[in-house]
Amino acid sequence: MSTYNIAIVGPMGAVGQEVAKILIERNFPIQSIKLLGTSANKGRKINFNDKIIYTKEAREGAFEGVDIAFFCVEAEISKILAPIAISEGAVIIDNSSAWRTEPDIPLIVPEVNSESLKNHKGLIANPNCSTIQMLVPLKPIHDKYKIKRIVVSTYQAVSGTGKNAIDELNTQAKAYVNEKEIANFVYPYQILFNAIPHIDSFIENGYTKEEMKMVNEANKILDKNIKVNATTVRIPVFRGHSESINIETELAFEIEDIKKLLKSSKGIAVIDDPKEYLYPMPLYATDTDDVYVGRIRKDFTVDNGLNMWVVADNLRKGAALNAVQIAETLIELKLL
Amino acid sequence: MSTYNIAIVGPMGAVGQEVAKILIERNFPIQSIKLLGTSANKGRKINFNDKIIYTKEAREGAFEGVDIAFFCVEAEISKILAPIAISEGAVIIDNSSAWRTEPDIPLIVPEVNSESLKNHKGLIANPNCSTIQMLVPLKPIHDKYKIKRIVVSTYQAVSGTGKNAIDELNTQAKAYVNEKEIANFVYPYQILFNAIPHIDSFIENGYTKEEMKMVNEANKILDKNIKVNATTVRIPVFRGHSESINIETELAFEIEDIKKLLKSSKGIAVIDDPKEYLYPMPLYATDTDDVYVGRIRKDFTVDNGLNMWVVADNLRKGAALNAVQIAETLIELKLL
Repeated sequence: MSTYNIAIVGPMGAVGQEVAKILIERNFPIQSIKLLGTSANKGRKINFNDKIIYTKEAREGAFEGVDIAFFCVEAEISKILAPIAISEGAVIIDNSSAWRTEPDIPLIVPEVNSESLKNHKGLIANPNCSTIQMLVPLKPIHDKYKIKRIVVSTYQAVSGTGKNAIDELNTQAKAYVNEKEIANFVYPYQILFNAIPHIDSFIENGYTKEEMKMVNEANKILDKNIKVNATTVRIPVFRGHSESINIETELAFEIEDIKKLLKSSKGIAVIDDPKEYLYPMPLYATDTDDVYVGRIRKDFTVDNGLNMWVVADNLRKGAALNAVQIAETLIELKLL
Repeated sequence: MSTYNIAIVGPMGAVGQEVAKILIERNFPIQSIKLLGTSANKGRKINFNDKIIYTKEAREGAFEGVDIAFFCVEAEISKILAPIAISEGAVIIDNSSAWRTEPDIPLIVPEVNSESLKNHKGLIANPNCSTIQMLVPLKPIHDKYKIKRIVVSTYQAVSGTGKNAIDELNTQAKAYVNEKEIANFVYPYQILFNAIPHIDSFIENGYTKEEMKMVNEANKILDKNIKVNATTVRIPVFRGHSESINIETELAFEIEDIKKLLKSSKGIAVIDDPKEYLYPMPLYATDTDDVYVGRIRKDFTVDNGLNMWVVADNLRKGAALNAVQIAETLIELKLL
């Protein structure tokens, strides 16, 4: 079996750390590993699979000899570094929103559209966390019953914002319990014991960019004809996004067949026996790989309406795991 | 101005305490007040408007001379006590779900259907918290544009469950911060840093009773022809329910007119300037009376589609305040 020279760009962040963990867990065929950070983070010691790796600066020359570079950095940084990495021969799997809407850059959820990897030009975009976990269960339903419209409301964890947001929720919990003043820096308001209907920035039409990502990415990945209406909300959960998804399909279905379809699909775990208190929850999705689907029931207000409650670890399937699965698929399809 | 003999049944609970507070705040015309609890709670001292009141047992005879009895107890207790209170001449405003679906019992949101009070037979039902705050903003929209369908997902606070749930979230936060084991008694799972898609019990069709309350109560109060699809979820917030509401109307509207309509309607505060970080949030709705509406925007996936984010204090407008407003309306309409 071939092995590969890997780089993780942004190894200190929430997603970068998760990529490292998942590469080890999944026994990814690694020849060498480079951890590339900002100049300020140069020379830090990071434990990778019981070896000490010193971080290097992500700059010209750093990507020479790299086969696959996992970019786990902000869009602005990706915009600068990606052309350098490509010119030095690396294939990039990018977690930011920088490249997702470019028409000739594949945006991939391996369970949904791995065939779009075929014409990649050295950069593959990893979709937004809330999009990935929505599309995994919708794909088999769309293939069989043709989805016309999606109305989705999200319940998103703070880890989607990054490590500083995880720290903020923690700090706010401590301040609350110790009866200190609760401060906020990352979010515009206290997130502890609150719900903030605001993820990413607002655009002219009254939607957030996060909401429009769910619309545009679902259209690019699954089907451009599906109409998507999204409301995205941050709640005080550390890890695991939840989504209340309502869909309408072209063709009539039986609920039992939907459950059967989902149960037999890759990457999905159906947890749906509510009378036994079995339904997906973010606390219990933490650190696991599946997209969990429950509360599967008819929407009686339209023909062919369906409700589902979908939960996944936003740092794993919503980010790092999906990125590593893209790399595995590139290897499998001999596209490196 | 006439004054009235008032009873609060269940004065130690979250809603009962709130009713007492609101009666004082709103300067309700009180002649006398009785606080009626279980036999176990008999003789407790409660401060009401700077006077000490001793609780009495809610039983035969306790309602004699009472004009208005606010019932803030479980449905099972209401089923037993309500016939006694009615036979002793009290008019009951009941916060439980015991009587809401009875066809000849008025189920009232004063801003929406106070005319239905006219034929009351001594008992008026106060709707479910999540229904009340949904219907207040939908009423003016329905009057002008005729709502056909509602798809709603809720983000509900623990105080909807009662005082023990408030204590549970508090206790779990303390345990988390002090690195102790997190226990749960009220909810089937830890609610701190979690989201539980389960409010009230499940019925055969896969919905919860809470979800069906939103359907059935909206049909009874607003319009039996509106189709309602609900998903109800508990999140770690103490007070203030939030709702992501998507509607379709019969007639076309302009967003600016929807905002104008809502701004000019009683009981509603529009907070909707997202670029200035202005949108409703449960933390800031706590202890206030309005139903807050924001994130008002077109749903582009259907003709005449609209999205809104609606927040209200579930213990006030969602329960105690609405109950007191029903009493005020009874007085105003001379229906006592």
